[in-house]
Amino acid sequence: MAQAGNSANTPVWSEFPRTVLRGVGQVMFQDSMWTGLLIFIGIFWGAYAEGFGVVAWGALVGVVVSTLAGYFLDLPDENGAQGLWGFNGCLVGCALPTFLGDTVWMWLAIILCSAMTTWVRSGLDNIWGKWNLSTFTFPFVLCTWFFLLAARAMHGMPPIEESTPAFPLEGSTALDLSFGSLVIYWLKGISQVFLVNSWVTGIFFLAGLAVSSWRATLWCAISSAVALFVIIIWQGPGADIAAGLYGFSAVLTGIALGATFCNYSWKAAVWTVLGVIATVFIQGAMNVFFAPMGLATLTGPFCIATWLFLLPAYPFFMPKQQ
Amino acid sequence: MAQAGNSANTPVWSEFPRTVLRGVGQVMFQDSMWTGLLIFIGIFWGAYAEGFGVVAWGALVGVVVSTLAGYFLDLPDENGAQGLWGFNGCLVGCALPTFLGDTVWMWLAIILCSAMTTWVRSGLDNIWGKWNLSTFTFPFVLCTWFFLLAARAMHGMPPIEESTPAFPLEGSTALDLSFGSLVIYWLKGISQVFLVNSWVTGIFFLAGLAVSSWRATLWCAISSAVALFVIIIWQGPGADIAAGLYGFSAVLTGIALGATFCNYSWKAAVWTVLGVIATVFIQGAMNVFFAPMGLATLTGPFCIATWLFLLPAYPFFMPKQQ
Amino acid sequence: MAQAGNSANTPVWSEFPRTVLRGVGQVMFQDSMWTGLLIFIGIFWGAYAEGFGVVAWGALVGVVVSTLAGYFLDLPDENGAQGLWGFNGCLVGCALPTFLGDTVWMWLAIILCSAMTTWVRSGLDNIWGKWNLSTFTFPFVLCTWFFLLAARAMHGMPPIEESTPAFPLEGSTALDLSFGSLVIYWLKGISQVFLVNSWVTGIFFLAGLAVSSWRATLWCAISSAVALFVIIIWQGPGADIAAGLYGFSAVLTGIALGATFCNYSWKAAVWTVLGVIATVFIQGAMNVFFAPMGLATLTGPFCIATWLFLLPAYPFFMPKQQ
Repeated sequence: MAQAGNSANTPVWSEFPRTVLRGVGQVMFQDSMWTGLLIFIGIFWGAYAEGFGVVAWGALVGVVVSTLAGYFLDLPDENGAQGLWGFNGCLVGCALPTFLGDTVWMWLAIILCSAMTTWVRSGLDNIWGKWNLSTFTFPFVLCTWFFLLAARAMHGMPPIEESTPAFPLEGSTALDLSFGSLVIYWLKGISQVFLVNSWVTGIFFLAGLAVSSWRATLWCAISSAVALFVIIIWQGPGADIAAGLYGFSAVLTGIALGATFCNYSWKAAVWTVLGVIATVFIQGAMNVFFAPMGLATLTGPFCIATWLFLLPAYPFFMPKQQ
Repeated sequence: MAQAGNSANTPVWSEFPRTVLRGVGQVMFQDSMWTGLLIFIGIFWGAYAEGFGVVAWGALVGVVVSTLAGYFLDLPDENGAQGLWGFNGCLVGCALPTFLGDTVWMWLAIILCSAMTTWVRSGLDNIWGKWNLSTFTFPFVLCTWFFLLAARAMHGMPPIEESTPAFPLEGSTALDLSFGSLVIYWLKGISQVFLVNSWVTGIFFLAGLAVSSWRATLWCAISSAVALFVIIIWQGPGADIAAGLYGFSAVLTGIALGATFCNYSWKAAVWTVLGVIATVFIQGAMNVFFAPMGLATLTGPFCIATWLFLLPAYPFFMPKQQ
Repeated sequence: MAQAGNSANTPVWSEFPRTVLRGVGQVMFQDSMWTGLLIFIGIFWGAYAEGFGVVAWGALVGVVVSTLAGYFLDLPDENGAQGLWGFNGCLVGCALPTFLGDTVWMWLAIILCSAMTTWVRSGLDNIWGKWNLSTFTFPFVLCTWFFLLAARAMHGMPPIEESTPAFPLEGSTALDLSFGSLVIYWLKGISQVFLVNSWVTGIFFLAGLAVSSWRATLWCAISSAVALFVIIIWQGPGADIAAGLYGFSAVLTGIALGATFCNYSWKAAVWTVLGVIATVFIQGAMNVFFAPMGLATLTGPFCIATWLFLLPAYPFFMPKQQ
């Protein structure tokens, strides 16, 4: 309200690139354009290294469209300036090209779906807000589930071969446990936050966090390691572990609980580790639950775990901000 | 409250047929017995034309039982006089005979399930009401899901052959796109609101809306057309499109957003079209999600889409009534 | 607050065994250590009679761990003294060894999962409390679903052979309907509340209820009988009926509505019977819904049915306590 000048047209457009980059940073809870920039570089690097450049361009389209949707809907400006309109759309743009064929209808779906996250977020905030909870990336998760599932009934944007249903326990537990391999799995657990399967991208993401918050960087690193440890001793599917697929939700839970929404006590640290461990089991559960439909969990396990660990609102982890 | 006389026993029973017909009209948001009458004629016509008369009698039993349940529970009378007790039960009576064999246990299930919608509705209203939302047809959807799923474990009311699980993308996209065929699909999208597969019934439903509200008629027509267009260009399954199965939820979303809960501005009109498009994808998603259980989505996609588009409560579509 | 002395360390530990036993009793809504003791004896008897002693030890570990979690989290003491921290954990301890192999990781999972129910319960209470509803055994249901599903992706605690997916309608309806057999099914419907398949255990549970409340005993007996009658005439799967698998949720619905949360009028009695009947269909529905994932419904049907029947908050069944 005080910054009413900001919502005048001219400054908004000159601020647009900054707002977009902050949107990327907000996926990892950082209100920083530099974090966003480093993450973006990591996404482009990883996407092209995988031979899947379309994912990076999808991320760009998604974050721009969902941020524009915020302006068109005339939502309160402080929200947008912090990048809170863009982060869901950015993830939509990563997810659809990862799972669907590169058709014109898929690109139209990215535009529709990422715009939709902006108003779905403001709608769901009305519900979650009653319990002082954020909706996190759930608007992305919900809208993307709609489009990914629908794609299985629409030949205009058919799913890519690899994402066909398979029953998890058939997966072998074989896994190279050398130190070098473990480091790669650990970094991929971080890069998969944006659905990128590249350890170099993981380093870019850590660097992006480091320019904004050492606590977030630390918890990102710890959480991916804890998740890796838990899923290895419980003998999860080797291929998924190697691709970092048990890490990304845990990473977000760790940053959310450890560096964003709790105070900085040792009790809160124990709480965060418990939350990260719980995330691994919720991740496994949702993988199995969605297996018959060949659907990805996206960051759903992070949302559920973090809500369950914030909802009790115990005094020893007074929420810091929300 | 003012019409306390209405809740005395005598006038209630003389009003009963009117209340029942309004219950049928309320499925399409019309508090009009004439709408209800024309819809009823349409249901009987379509059901017998399909050789499936049992669906029409089910609709009659369902609306009567659920309306009676409202009287027995002694719910506030204004609700009932507007037909708000009956519309969920009417749909229960259409749905169970469509999917289950015609046994005595199926008829008992119609009675149980349609009565149950009345108190489930008043219970869920306590939740949804906190966000100024209506539960729409969700009490019907929820209770009918229980009974349809349970039927797969109960030989007393076994599912009809046709509703066995099938994975959607196997469906062919072949579809006759001549103008005459398109008109038929468009009308069937309307008739399927009551699970009737007949273009003549679609005309009766349009006529029923026309005697009550030209806006509702217009949005009904537009929404079925928009949904048809979207699902054709995204190449959905031909057989489902031809039977109007991508239209009925979209029709209800269109009437709800465009003619019932929003104001009458061009912004609200754009919003309604966006809501109708989103409904098509949510319909596809739920079709796929329920495929492994052989379950119908019923009007679930309409409920979800309309909630998501009403929840943000943006100023440019001040709710008109709720 | 007034009993601040209770939360001092010494008396707490001397009260610990009592608190644990009350935790067991609270599964059936009885704040009585004698009920808990008789139920415990029943569990041990039944578990060893089935050659499945591990279930009884699981129950003991679960109730102790979840009660300890309440102390460590420093939750308000009155709650714990009534056994409200322990009942979810007790059920976790029954469920995991019933469905998962007896490995060290499974025992670690019991500890994690039963502790988690304590804080998940206090978190979910913040949501359900807005509508004056209890979360019942839902914290147990939710957390156990996570771990049971995750187990299908983790070779460290693989599911036991028997719990593989099967499509319900393939089950035969063949069932011995002699009076003696019916009594056994009826008692097993009661023993299955704690996942025990033994008619002797059913008698122990009835005895446990009898020392605390004759109303609860009566409704327990009636509900298991009503559920048995309904599922037999609707011709459910014979093997499930014989094992009492359509009884346990109905038993809990009956005790909750008939003896705990409603007043003692004949209207409330009719309401309770309706709730028990609805529970049978919801049980069937959830059995079918979870069949593709080979997941047990646990006491989910009881929670859903009881919420649906308490939510309307009709005046004729003024809640007695909540």
